[in-house]
Amino acid sequence: MNFEEKTVHSKKIYDGKVINLQLDEVTLPNGKTSSREIVKHPGAVAVIAVTENNKVIFVKQYRKALEKTLVEIPAGKMEKDEPPELTAVRELEEETGYTTEHLSFVTSFYTSPGFADEIIYLYETNQLKLLEEKKALDEDEFVELLELSLTEAEELVRDQQIHDAKTAFAIQYLKSKGMK
Amino acid sequence: MNFEEKTVHSKKIYDGKVINLQLDEVTLPNGKTSSREIVKHPGAVAVIAVTENNKVIFVKQYRKALEKTLVEIPAGKMEKDEPPELTAVRELEEETGYTTEHLSFVTSFYTSPGFADEIIYLYETNQLKLLEEKKALDEDEFVELLELSLTEAEELVRDQQIHDAKTAFAIQYLKSKGMK
Repeated sequence: MNFEEKTVHSKKIYDGKVINLQLDEVTLPNGKTSSREIVKHPGAVAVIAVTENNKVIFVKQYRKALEKTLVEIPAGKMEKDEPPELTAVRELEEETGYTTEHLSFVTSFYTSPGFADEIIYLYETNQLKLLEEKKALDEDEFVELLELSLTEAEELVRDQQIHDAKTAFAIQYLKSKGMK
Repeated sequence: MNFEEKTVHSKKIYDGKVINLQLDEVTLPNGKTSSREIVKHPGAVAVIAVTENNKVIFVKQYRKALEKTLVEIPAGKMEKDEPPELTAVRELEEETGYTTEHLSFVTSFYTSPGFADEIIYLYETNQLKLLEEKKALDEDEFVELLELSLTEAEELVRDQQIHDAKTAFAIQYLKSKGMK
C-alpha cells in the first residue's frame, strides 16, 4: 500500500543553530489534508567504544531539554558535508581523549520519525589509543568521562542515569553479542 | 561535577499540534551564556508484541519527516494525563486489531536528548487477543499490519525498511533474550 503524503505547502517556522522547524500541509491517502510539524536536524554519530580492559566508554553531560544529567555513549552532530566516519573520530577525540584507526559501522536509525528527520550513524571500536594532547570541546559543551563494565552500565540504566535511545541500543547490542 | 545550565530566559517560538518549540537562554558552567533550542513533546509509548506463533507485530506507515515508509513496532503519543499502560493498550488496539491484558514494562528512554524531551515507554506482551471489532485510527493515520519472525525483521533492518531507534532497540532486546 502507498500511504505517501504529498506536500501542498511548506512553511519555515524557525531557522536555528541546531534545528529548523517547518510546517507542511499535506494531502493524505484518503484525499483529505492535514498538517505535519517537522524538525530538521543535521544528523548525528555515536560510538560504542570498548577499552582493552573490556570497559565501555561513556560521557556524562547535562541535557537542557530534560533538565537532567545523562550518561551516554560519545556522540555528536555532523558538520555540513562531513562524512559520518570523520564525525565519529572527531567526537570520540573531543569527548573522550581517545582516538582510533579502526571503526566499524554498526547500524543507523532515525530517533523520532514522527516529528524529526534526525538520523544517528552508530559505529563501534575496541581499538582505542589515548591522544597525547586533549582536543577542545565545543565552547558550550561540558562532559565527564566514565569507563564502565556492561554490568555497571546496566545498573545506570535501572537508575535512569543512562536513559537515551542510542545508549540503550548500544547496551542491548553488546549484550546480544555476548559481552559480559 | 555539576554541569547544570540555569535558564536566564525562555521564549516560546511555536505552539503546535504535536510539538512545541522554545528557545532557552542559559548560563553555562563556565559563566558564559548560550542558547538551547528545545522541542517539547507529550511522550510516547511503544509495544513489543509477540504472537503465539512467535512472530513480532509491526506496522508500516509513511513518515512525512523522512519522506519515507517505515516498518516500526506499534507506538503512539500519550494523550494528556493518560497513564502509559493505557496508551500502550489503546495504540495496540487501534494500530493492530489485537488487545492484551498482560503488558510488562521493559524500559523507557529519551529519543533525542540533545534537542527534545520526547520519552518513549516500552512495553512487551506475548499474550495477544484479536479484537472482535477493529478500533478506529486517528483520522490522519494510515497503517498496514505485518507479522514477522525475528529473522525476517532483521532482513528489513538491513534493507532500511526498519530504521528507527525504538524498533532497532526492540529487535536487539528480543535477540539478547534469546528469541530466534
